[in-house]
Amino acid sequence: MATRTAVLDGVFHALADPTRRAVVEQLGRGPAATSLLGRDHDMALASFSQHLDVLRTSGLVTSEKQGRVRTYRLVPAGLAPAETWLDAQHRLWSARLDQLDAYLTDLEGDPT
Amino acid sequence: MATRTAVLDGVFHALADPTRRAVVEQLGRGPAATSLLGRDHDMALASFSQHLDVLRTSGLVTSEKQGRVRTYRLVPAGLAPAETWLDAQHRLWSARLDQLDAYLTDLEGDPT
Repeated sequence: MATRTAVLDGVFHALADPTRRAVVEQLGRGPAATSLLGRDHDMALASFSQHLDVLRTSGLVTSEKQGRVRTYRLVPAGLAPAETWLDAQHRLWSARLDQLDAYLTDLEGDPT
Repeated sequence: MATRTAVLDGVFHALADPTRRAVVEQLGRGPAATSLLGRDHDMALASFSQHLDVLRTSGLVTSEKQGRVRTYRLVPAGLAPAETWLDAQHRLWSARLDQLDAYLTDLEGDPT
């Protein structure tokens, strides 16, 4: 089993590319076959397949082959580690800004 | 000015490394000098500096030099593009799952 660190590395790496983000966006609307996914991307099939492999390895998508058609699906839970990490950072710095704000308000209210 | 795509590429790339995420976590608690930031990371200063450069280039941190001390600060707004993108994906697939759920409930309620 991948550690939490390795999972976050993989998910953020997967999302650091516009083609891979576009695939995640497209699969958010529903499952799609490779041919449909690749239609809007102007690149060689081999390159596009590599992007799909990165997405699969990171746990963001799964695929299933039926006959000659491979269908990809988003794994919503795959995005959760990234969302959770960003939420934690957001809480951290906003709590600190709130404290700073309260401190400055105290200073203003105390003219001595 | 960097395009939204380039900004997202940069932010997700910056976050795809455990050392860089640890620096973001640490700076979420407040500004810190390079020496303090590097203390918990077992790597050569040159490597650590490269990580700080990636964070600076991505817009996640800024730094300021006073005398011989360089102090780093988190730029909370730098994380916003990643948060916004992930929120949009979350809304997209959860809306679709809600629709699917409503459809299945309809089917159950209609025995014909």
